[in-house]
Amino acid sequence: MNDSMLKNIRLKDGVFAPRQETNWKTTIPGCIRRCEETGRLKAFELKWKEGDPDKPHIFWDSDVAKVLEGMSASLQIHPDPAMEKKLDELIDLVIGAQQPDGYLNTHFTVIDQDKRWTNLHDWHELYCAGHLMEAAVAHYQATGRRKFLDAMRRYADYIDSLFGRDPGKKRGYPGHEEIELALVKLYHASGEKRYLELARYFVEERGTEPNYFVTAENFPEAGLKNRQAHKPVREQTEVDGHAVRAMYLFAGLADIAGETSDPALLECAERLFRNTVQRRMYITGGVGSTQFGEAFTHDFDLPNALAYAESCAAIGLALFAKRLLDITGKCEYADVLERVLYNNGLSGISLQGDTFFYANPLEMNETFFERGHIYSSRQKWFDCSCCPTNYCRFLPRLGLFCADAAPDRLRIDIPAAMEICRPEYAVEVTGKYPYDGRIGIKIKKGGDFTLSVRIPSWCRKHEILLNGKAVAVSDDGYWTSKRVWQTGDEVTLILKLVPEVVYADPRVPADIGKAAVQRGPVVYCLESTDNPGILLHSARIPAHPEFTLRAAEGLPAGTEALLFRGEAVKPSDGPLYGTNPPAYEAVQLCAVPFALWQNRGKSAMQIYLQVK
Amino acid sequence: MNDSMLKNIRLKDGVFAPRQETNWKTTIPGCIRRCEETGRLKAFELKWKEGDPDKPHIFWDSDVAKVLEGMSASLQIHPDPAMEKKLDELIDLVIGAQQPDGYLNTHFTVIDQDKRWTNLHDWHELYCAGHLMEAAVAHYQATGRRKFLDAMRRYADYIDSLFGRDPGKKRGYPGHEEIELALVKLYHASGEKRYLELARYFVEERGTEPNYFVTAENFPEAGLKNRQAHKPVREQTEVDGHAVRAMYLFAGLADIAGETSDPALLECAERLFRNTVQRRMYITGGVGSTQFGEAFTHDFDLPNALAYAESCAAIGLALFAKRLLDITGKCEYADVLERVLYNNGLSGISLQGDTFFYANPLEMNETFFERGHIYSSRQKWFDCSCCPTNYCRFLPRLGLFCADAAPDRLRIDIPAAMEICRPEYAVEVTGKYPYDGRIGIKIKKGGDFTLSVRIPSWCRKHEILLNGKAVAVSDDGYWTSKRVWQTGDEVTLILKLVPEVVYADPRVPADIGKAAVQRGPVVYCLESTDNPGILLHSARIPAHPEFTLRAAEGLPAGTEALLFRGEAVKPSDGPLYGTNPPAYEAVQLCAVPFALWQNRGKSAMQIYLQVK
Repeated sequence: MNDSMLKNIRLKDGVFAPRQETNWKTTIPGCIRRCEETGRLKAFELKWKEGDPDKPHIFWDSDVAKVLEGMSASLQIHPDPAMEKKLDELIDLVIGAQQPDGYLNTHFTVIDQDKRWTNLHDWHELYCAGHLMEAAVAHYQATGRRKFLDAMRRYADYIDSLFGRDPGKKRGYPGHEEIELALVKLYHASGEKRYLELARYFVEERGTEPNYFVTAENFPEAGLKNRQAHKPVREQTEVDGHAVRAMYLFAGLADIAGETSDPALLECAERLFRNTVQRRMYITGGVGSTQFGEAFTHDFDLPNALAYAESCAAIGLALFAKRLLDITGKCEYADVLERVLYNNGLSGISLQGDTFFYANPLEMNETFFERGHIYSSRQKWFDCSCCPTNYCRFLPRLGLFCADAAPDRLRIDIPAAMEICRPEYAVEVTGKYPYDGRIGIKIKKGGDFTLSVRIPSWCRKHEILLNGKAVAVSDDGYWTSKRVWQTGDEVTLILKLVPEVVYADPRVPADIGKAAVQRGPVVYCLESTDNPGILLHSARIPAHPEFTLRAAEGLPAGTEALLFRGEAVKPSDGPLYGTNPPAYEAVQLCAVPFALWQNRGKSAMQIYLQVK
Repeated sequence: MNDSMLKNIRLKDGVFAPRQETNWKTTIPGCIRRCEETGRLKAFELKWKEGDPDKPHIFWDSDVAKVLEGMSASLQIHPDPAMEKKLDELIDLVIGAQQPDGYLNTHFTVIDQDKRWTNLHDWHELYCAGHLMEAAVAHYQATGRRKFLDAMRRYADYIDSLFGRDPGKKRGYPGHEEIELALVKLYHASGEKRYLELARYFVEERGTEPNYFVTAENFPEAGLKNRQAHKPVREQTEVDGHAVRAMYLFAGLADIAGETSDPALLECAERLFRNTVQRRMYITGGVGSTQFGEAFTHDFDLPNALAYAESCAAIGLALFAKRLLDITGKCEYADVLERVLYNNGLSGISLQGDTFFYANPLEMNETFFERGHIYSSRQKWFDCSCCPTNYCRFLPRLGLFCADAAPDRLRIDIPAAMEICRPEYAVEVTGKYPYDGRIGIKIKKGGDFTLSVRIPSWCRKHEILLNGKAVAVSDDGYWTSKRVWQTGDEVTLILKLVPEVVYADPRVPADIGKAAVQRGPVVYCLESTDNPGILLHSARIPAHPEFTLRAAEGLPAGTEALLFRGEAVKPSDGPLYGTNPPAYEAVQLCAVPFALWQNRGKSAMQIYLQVK
């Protein structure tokens, strides 16, 4: 994933672009404020002492790092001198905490000074280091200034001096993966190949025998799977354990596969991706079914009301998918990426950008939200606040997930309205995707390059016009044309976009007898806001409903709601168990995009409906 | 609940009696062995020191106490001199650990000596004390010997000297309730009213302001509900928090309501019972939906595959129901009691009596058991081994739950085959209940008493013959006849017993569109053992199936299996999400009693089936 391309892609659509603006204006300033209020920033002053409030926590540095990374990424699409000034102040604060040997971690500098690197399996030091490195690279890409980058190179050099297979080095690796992909970024920004080698070491050493966590840290064998350290990564065939850790690790694995052109490693990454998305992914792109260990469980175990589907895990799946897409060019990766971006990837943050879901269940029953269930409304912050700060850095990069703009080729993966400008060419994508299937791709500055346009797998019929004339359609997932494009050339992509009733594999117990509604890449849900008085979980949809589109009320302009006739139960007091079947009555139902639920006050919500 | 009646009731049926025999021969000896192996018995020697293995845990004493209680109860129905000798040895061991002031707790005698009663909310001291008292009362009832009883009276006296509203006393109460109902038993066995008063104090003080756990122990407010201490018990309208604690507390509450004839307290107990069984109980009689905090959640939240439904909680619900049944004589309490006894109350233990479920989900999906899910097979023991030892004492008392035999009245609540012998009369109940609805009630020794026979609420049609002649049927739940019964008189109860399709209230999201099969009080399930190759969770049952009875294969003689035609999906590899509806094919399905699942090797299991 080439973050430096961010400056070339400017989103102009109705879904992603407003989220980026809100992130700039609300989410980032809000997260900075929370980092201040909670002591996360003050921790970098290294003045905390026993008895003081706000004891620096082992993973606080990562939250600050993600905000810094988000500020840098945001500056590339929304120049803002005041934010840039604040960013530089914060970087000075952070760098100021760096130790002479390059080490930078607030907790282990003021507390537990003698415990550096003694508990890799739990204590998040390498995880925090990775996030700081990513932040430094983003700052360098945004501003060209090397101060932060150089500091984090010193930190990476220090880590490189400690870890590895050379005699005297620790043969450890992170309990919470993240530094792998960060080191690859640092390698790209600096050209220093040692960082790539260190990333590769962390990936390859993981889970080998004798197991480091077990032998050096007395970590129980039973916990290894949660950290993807139960066997060497190359031998792993199923995605297991903590979902965010798994996604970050496999994204790093893919990076290394791409950098080293190691076919076995790529095959490993693709295998793990297939297991994820063909067996263990929600229709929303969510992953990690269970709150226990925030983890993957097993094939087809995808409960809806009790789904965990952490926001950060969806972001991690997007990172993983994007890397495999860039390496292989296969449409299947873009299909998953798009599923994540328009659904679980956005559901974790409110339209106002000020509240967040940590978990993203696919069903919120009436009694759950009445009781103030923990996942029934978005929260302003969390003790473990990885998700809010992850959005700071994820949202500004949405453009990168929509297109890949190399000097000699442009691949449009998600045809959201955007401008792609390079020295070699400029292209404008117009339309109201994902709510409308007609997309214009206009050459604003001609050039000699290959244009590839994805035909999404959900689309059953499409047309492509080149300057108004139909051209042969493709069926390998991308329509590709290499030519000397003239300024004013226009490709029109017409994707048939109809609401569909979508079934999960019947091996998914939670979805048996049920189906979801999807239109294009957008997964719909019923919310009680639009369906007052209806027991949502009892709703039935016909197998072949007649859908009507309507502007969704109280949601951003352009958002399409879907109306259809169905049935639902009118509940009445009776015995908890009895022989009378529930009585259904005909009702009008209104579905809205899942990603936007709980933006209009508290509401019950249901994605999967019984099929009549 | 009058345990002393146990000697008057001898079960002879095909379901409960064999469980009692297995408990005597296998479960109790096995639990004694485990208590030995794990150091639970050795702990009473008070010789443990730092560095030794098997550090006495805060709740180990309760496990030993429950085994002792079970041995005593078992001796009443299965005299066994060797077991009685062993019991006396163990009692000597236990009593030997009692301190001069009456205190008896292995953990706080050899470890944390200075921390007695300093953490009531978590440390289980009063809980362990309660179980020891119950064990002592059971021993006294079984043998007439007072040694253990007197020792536990000294312990109760000591506790009474510490807790209460008098100046200088601690105004605390247990974090894990249990001692309340134990003190009532101790009151009955000893006649000492102070024990009843202390029990009443513990119940009434609970949750009052200023909150003891919060003010004296710095326990977070957020944790109070888990311990039913968020408000005074009298003001509680919903059953909340840790399910076992709640059931034990409310059983004690009912005891006190019965003893004190306090109508408000009884009303409170009945209200909490109704909330439990009308809103928060599984069809199996299981309670406590979630593993988080082993707790109740909220109305209608009854997930199946992820049900917790701890074995001990079902036992607790039986204790609660039995008390309200004895106090009020209302059939609704017997209905719930019976639901528990024939379903979740027995599912927690194998037919061999040597393995146990801690949790009792209502669905075990194919992939769950393939992966060795924690609840996919019964375990020999647990670190927290409350459930196995609870069975030791629960099973011998099953007769007590079936009938109430007072000198002047006999109430038959569950017409399992049994003999009820008192000085005043003797009655034999015959038949194959619950698998056959024809029940004989024969007077073996005549006398002047009132006979009440329950007509279960699941029964839509019944007949009663008195000496072969039909008598008027009752519809208030009990048929009652007061007369001078002659030896040889016979009442015949004919309950129409047909398999039925049972629906949960449609407000239960997990069961929407589904139904269970029940025959009489027995809830059925599909097991893959009987339905090989069928994706059980995809099974559909017609709304009006034709059932055929068949002897269940590999299960105890007399167990009826149910055959019916249904449908199921034949799975094939395809996309995880797609527009093709799953294809169903006609299949023959075989259901067996839920309580007996996983007794014939590992198996998937399904109670709720889609209704076609």
